[in-house]
Amino acid sequence: MADKYVPTREDRFSFGIWTVGWQGTDVFGGPVRPPMAADRAVRKLAELGAYGVNFHDNDVFDFDDAATERDAKITAFKKALEETGTVVTTATTNLFGHPMFKDGAFTANEREVRRFALAKVMRNLDLAAELGARTYVFWGGREGAESGAAKDVRAALDRYAEGLNTLSQYVLDQGYQIRFAVEPKPNEPRGDILLPTVGHALAFINSLEHPEMVGVNPEVGHEEMAGVNYAHGIAQALWHGKLFHIDLNGQHGPRYDQDLRFGAGNARGAFWVVDTLLAGGYDGPVHFDFKPPRTEDDDGVWESAKACMTNYLILRDKVRAFRADPEVVAALAASRAGELAQPTLASGETWRDVRETTVDADALGARGLGYERLDQLALEHLYGTR
Amino acid sequence: MADKYVPTREDRFSFGIWTVGWQGTDVFGGPVRPPMAADRAVRKLAELGAYGVNFHDNDVFDFDDAATERDAKITAFKKALEETGTVVTTATTNLFGHPMFKDGAFTANEREVRRFALAKVMRNLDLAAELGARTYVFWGGREGAESGAAKDVRAALDRYAEGLNTLSQYVLDQGYQIRFAVEPKPNEPRGDILLPTVGHALAFINSLEHPEMVGVNPEVGHEEMAGVNYAHGIAQALWHGKLFHIDLNGQHGPRYDQDLRFGAGNARGAFWVVDTLLAGGYDGPVHFDFKPPRTEDDDGVWESAKACMTNYLILRDKVRAFRADPEVVAALAASRAGELAQPTLASGETWRDVRETTVDADALGARGLGYERLDQLALEHLYGTR
Amino acid sequence: MADKYVPTREDRFSFGIWTVGWQGTDVFGGPVRPPMAADRAVRKLAELGAYGVNFHDNDVFDFDDAATERDAKITAFKKALEETGTVVTTATTNLFGHPMFKDGAFTANEREVRRFALAKVMRNLDLAAELGARTYVFWGGREGAESGAAKDVRAALDRYAEGLNTLSQYVLDQGYQIRFAVEPKPNEPRGDILLPTVGHALAFINSLEHPEMVGVNPEVGHEEMAGVNYAHGIAQALWHGKLFHIDLNGQHGPRYDQDLRFGAGNARGAFWVVDTLLAGGYDGPVHFDFKPPRTEDDDGVWESAKACMTNYLILRDKVRAFRADPEVVAALAASRAGELAQPTLASGETWRDVRETTVDADALGARGLGYERLDQLALEHLYGTR
Amino acid sequence: MADKYVPTREDRFSFGIWTVGWQGTDVFGGPVRPPMAADRAVRKLAELGAYGVNFHDNDVFDFDDAATERDAKITAFKKALEETGTVVTTATTNLFGHPMFKDGAFTANEREVRRFALAKVMRNLDLAAELGARTYVFWGGREGAESGAAKDVRAALDRYAEGLNTLSQYVLDQGYQIRFAVEPKPNEPRGDILLPTVGHALAFINSLEHPEMVGVNPEVGHEEMAGVNYAHGIAQALWHGKLFHIDLNGQHGPRYDQDLRFGAGNARGAFWVVDTLLAGGYDGPVHFDFKPPRTEDDDGVWESAKACMTNYLILRDKVRAFRADPEVVAALAASRAGELAQPTLASGETWRDVRETTVDADALGARGLGYERLDQLALEHLYGTR
Repeated sequence: MADKYVPTREDRFSFGIWTVGWQGTDVFGGPVRPPMAADRAVRKLAELGAYGVNFHDNDVFDFDDAATERDAKITAFKKALEETGTVVTTATTNLFGHPMFKDGAFTANEREVRRFALAKVMRNLDLAAELGARTYVFWGGREGAESGAAKDVRAALDRYAEGLNTLSQYVLDQGYQIRFAVEPKPNEPRGDILLPTVGHALAFINSLEHPEMVGVNPEVGHEEMAGVNYAHGIAQALWHGKLFHIDLNGQHGPRYDQDLRFGAGNARGAFWVVDTLLAGGYDGPVHFDFKPPRTEDDDGVWESAKACMTNYLILRDKVRAFRADPEVVAALAASRAGELAQPTLASGETWRDVRETTVDADALGARGLGYERLDQLALEHLYGTR
Repeated sequence: MADKYVPTREDRFSFGIWTVGWQGTDVFGGPVRPPMAADRAVRKLAELGAYGVNFHDNDVFDFDDAATERDAKITAFKKALEETGTVVTTATTNLFGHPMFKDGAFTANEREVRRFALAKVMRNLDLAAELGARTYVFWGGREGAESGAAKDVRAALDRYAEGLNTLSQYVLDQGYQIRFAVEPKPNEPRGDILLPTVGHALAFINSLEHPEMVGVNPEVGHEEMAGVNYAHGIAQALWHGKLFHIDLNGQHGPRYDQDLRFGAGNARGAFWVVDTLLAGGYDGPVHFDFKPPRTEDDDGVWESAKACMTNYLILRDKVRAFRADPEVVAALAASRAGELAQPTLASGETWRDVRETTVDADALGARGLGYERLDQLALEHLYGTR
Repeated sequence: MADKYVPTREDRFSFGIWTVGWQGTDVFGGPVRPPMAADRAVRKLAELGAYGVNFHDNDVFDFDDAATERDAKITAFKKALEETGTVVTTATTNLFGHPMFKDGAFTANEREVRRFALAKVMRNLDLAAELGARTYVFWGGREGAESGAAKDVRAALDRYAEGLNTLSQYVLDQGYQIRFAVEPKPNEPRGDILLPTVGHALAFINSLEHPEMVGVNPEVGHEEMAGVNYAHGIAQALWHGKLFHIDLNGQHGPRYDQDLRFGAGNARGAFWVVDTLLAGGYDGPVHFDFKPPRTEDDDGVWESAKACMTNYLILRDKVRAFRADPEVVAALAASRAGELAQPTLASGETWRDVRETTVDADALGARGLGYERLDQLALEHLYGTR
Repeated sequence: MADKYVPTREDRFSFGIWTVGWQGTDVFGGPVRPPMAADRAVRKLAELGAYGVNFHDNDVFDFDDAATERDAKITAFKKALEETGTVVTTATTNLFGHPMFKDGAFTANEREVRRFALAKVMRNLDLAAELGARTYVFWGGREGAESGAAKDVRAALDRYAEGLNTLSQYVLDQGYQIRFAVEPKPNEPRGDILLPTVGHALAFINSLEHPEMVGVNPEVGHEEMAGVNYAHGIAQALWHGKLFHIDLNGQHGPRYDQDLRFGAGNARGAFWVVDTLLAGGYDGPVHFDFKPPRTEDDDGVWESAKACMTNYLILRDKVRAFRADPEVVAALAASRAGELAQPTLASGETWRDVRETTVDADALGARGLGYERLDQLALEHLYGTR
């Protein structure tokens, strides 16, 4: 198995620095692992087969670092990137950790916070551009509210749009080759977060000044926290031409944000995620945003990181085998799955040509669609028994 | 109390014919109430103070009715509308009840089903236009899947768009004064329904040929089934100028679709729903889409219908009192809620003016926002103790 | 594959007559399949490899059937059982379909309903005993409420207990070799159902007059609708010696009751369910309680029924391979999983022996548990890649 | 209003020291408020009207405190208790914050952790007894697992029982007047927590050596995270005589643990909680376990604490008014709510007396139960409009 599922640079796997670097602090307990310098994360991830990384500014240096400290840490980070040939595919800003962001950043009621947030992003956009990142993620984890009067949602959306518009202009004016990707989440750490699902984010993007610069970065767990189908979500994003990035991980439905390694959580869902990415021609980084559980030491951190990639490779194999299986092809035909690609109106037809359509309703009602057969074939491919 | 919370035509309350007409059939048991003719529903609703109704074609006549039977039922329906002065605000098509729609209508794999679905809608659009409906709702309850390979989601969205585009053209060509409203729902009766939330529907609409003709019809329960905040959802729809219609009812979070009367379910949520509608200047019908529980006889049906309106009127009163309360005004100011309406950049400013912003992060971090005080005021208005 | 995963009588697979017999009626649409006589269900299930069946009284005959009609149907049912050698492992009563049960049966506010419910159960207990059933299931689907004042929960529990106590006495007095199994469910069709989880049912049983006669019948989907871990639930039931029966199927977390075939839904969860059953020495029937989706015709019904058994056999194989895998054994040891079987106090120790325990807290805090490694091994067994 | 809803000692309100002392650390950000010494919490809570407190050992002193530091802090705590006349109603142990407890305490795979956990509890039981606490809470927040093989659930339940049995013996041997209360939670911080609901805990207690010493401490939010009805849960606990303590707060259904102030979250649910407590004669402390949101400064902390009590008093008033309202009494009679208190079998009857019961099923099926009327009356009492 080792040979077959060992990641290569061509697989374009990437990780957030904060994933393997998570120390395990949660609401009920403190850190269980020591801090990890960004450069160590880079070296270890490269060793495991990742080709790229994503970082928040404060994954590399601390919020309060003096300039020299900051620069030293960035230098070490760059050195590790260079020495390992690791690509910075993506970057993002920590606009949620510091207490000043407790009410959000772009949509904080306090204008001073909003202005500083823009400055903080611009500074990290410079670093991102310097490091060659092509995608810049916006996860608005603190943009939201626990109670109704606290946040005027329409005003907040105005400010959210203003923030992204300003930053789009910054990128254009600087000539950076960077696109934005909005990452939706329904709740946690806020009671309700603005742009809670991939749908809300896609709709919002259409109202921006530079919609062409902005797409989405859907995360498996975030969509599953809302009980919606992640594969359907990325399919709709692809349909809109807006799947700029993905965050793969695992989750068990509506509950706290689990950030399990990819493959854990909804195993059948993961199969369809990979199928959707392959079918949709997604060519961005295959990015993992997970948290090694608090039960793990340093070894466990790397076990879980490696497993994200292994599981993707296994599922990719299975998906290809599924689509190539003649029994599947036959079952898809029996389910008339391909017929859906055929327009409802023939070329040249208008509503006039269907206005008087009649059917044998009873016959259509009695016809089965054979989806159980089809789904069982998929499950047996997942099991590896066919 | 009676005088204060008695609905009038000016309140613009409307109901689906199918709400009070629901016989109580569910997966586990058959009907508990006799069928209700549409004209009876109209007369009783008018008597209770509703000014309008919404109907599916098959609320008025049966799928299999012969032309004479169909016409007789429509005539009785019209007569009741005329005699009571009831407005048909909205209409819609039953594309989910007949077995032929078991795999959807506009996105059924079978092209024949899709063609017939378009015809069925057009026929009812004619009736809707004749009866003066200005909004036509699309709830795609069967547009979805229980399993991954059964439905090519991107192809399905192509067909969904094709369907709405064709029907938009029909309305334009007929010169009907009708707008469309898409009603999202995450699941039930399908495992996963396409366009699962108000966000997904808003995004989809932007890709249609006539986006200006199409808005959304969010339902309280459908959004709460996904654990997302309904008031936030309609606020975003208003922000996009797309809140064409609303479906008010009640639900207890992620579980089966409960369709409780408005006011039941999430009581605090209902307060913010009314607040959002008033603040956002929503001027469509205040529409209720609920199901009188199976425990109710005919009296209970009307009790629950009446209570939907009573509760809206009570909440409207409370919301107005909340917004007028000087303590609330002061608490909002203390929470800098109004500051969010102030653009982050001053007039004429660009990113250059904020690029170098610095702040006293500790001071900002230490400042409280006073949301608990504000929310408690709202709760006490809900309780009626202030 | 065919040879390996073909069910035999020794596998003790059983089905509810109502599973394959479900016609597809739901809240939004009518039947999509014709009624299926119980004897046909028996013959087809036997053909597929099932050894047993479970039935509600009204799966075999209708509520309103006259005695002759009832008897004819029972006779046909018995004939099919005999001719196929199918065992009736289990029986139950339909106390939810008829409108008279809209407020429950044993806990209906109306005493007359409660008395009739007892009679209905006794009559079917006679049939169950005659047919050799050893387990009798109580699913109280309508025992619950949508609103707070409607149901005095403590009084309802009194009545629920009275009902089961009376029926226990009936079974004892008749000398039937029958045990009871309570099947919990959190909601649907009622807003909140009494005894919502396996835990609530286990607690309740302890307060009955004959707790030794009553256990639980947990259903995968019902527990997952509450977001709790089904494998944990049946492990606790086994710990209490109360896992009298199981209902295997599939579900995607908190939403409407999906009743997917076993294997669909939470695929990883299903692996641990089988592991828990094998480890716990469960020796009752391996029972499936699912609903073939509405998209299926008769062929699809049997595909899905067969797949329930196939998936169990596949998972059983995988679980055995997992437990036998030396790498798993080593990983379990590294995780100190076996240490948990070792009592915290050594034989003869009391609290006095641990009262002054001190530890190297930092060293213990730093030690990892290796669960990611272990879980990845399990996942690769599920995938069939090891 | 001030006079009416000001708490007094007779109201028996109590708070966890950790509630107002929460500094706001979560997975995504650090503390927003400075540490609060336990004695300050006591003084402020007393000032607001609380009569009692609950504490974890490490609310009063730190895990790593040297003996002198520990003693100084305990002395300050005692002084504040004495000076304010505050009662320590309840105590508990922090078995979740330190990294050594990352895999649980009583059910940690590592025996050394389990032994130390027992010692840590015993030490705090001594302090609890000295301070006069009558209830000792066990919230097993880290007793659980994220993955299937990590935890042998049946062995874990053995150890859990062993732990509680050992500690029961300790309490008995020391002659402490202390009872235990197990606090269930479905998940967070572990993927799945053992004893996930009030039902599971009640069942477990029955298998202990001293079940009479152990009851439950259900928390509003924890039960609502599983989508089950909290009022029903405490009603069942009361029915079993096991409601030893309560944790009141607020939550919006299945999502992360919100710990909102009591009254926020499910407002209608809170009404029925108070109704159930009053009807069931609960006479323990009315305890609040909430977290002031991260948006609040010190003022906001006390606003939210005070509001918990205000809301309870308001709801208590409303519940009493509801139960005294003649229209409610009439509606309850119409709903035959009282009939449920009447045994199904008359005194002296056995199953023989109901075996042949027949009914007019159609008539019973057609009868409505009037629950909508009843529930609307309750809602109007909640609104304060009647």
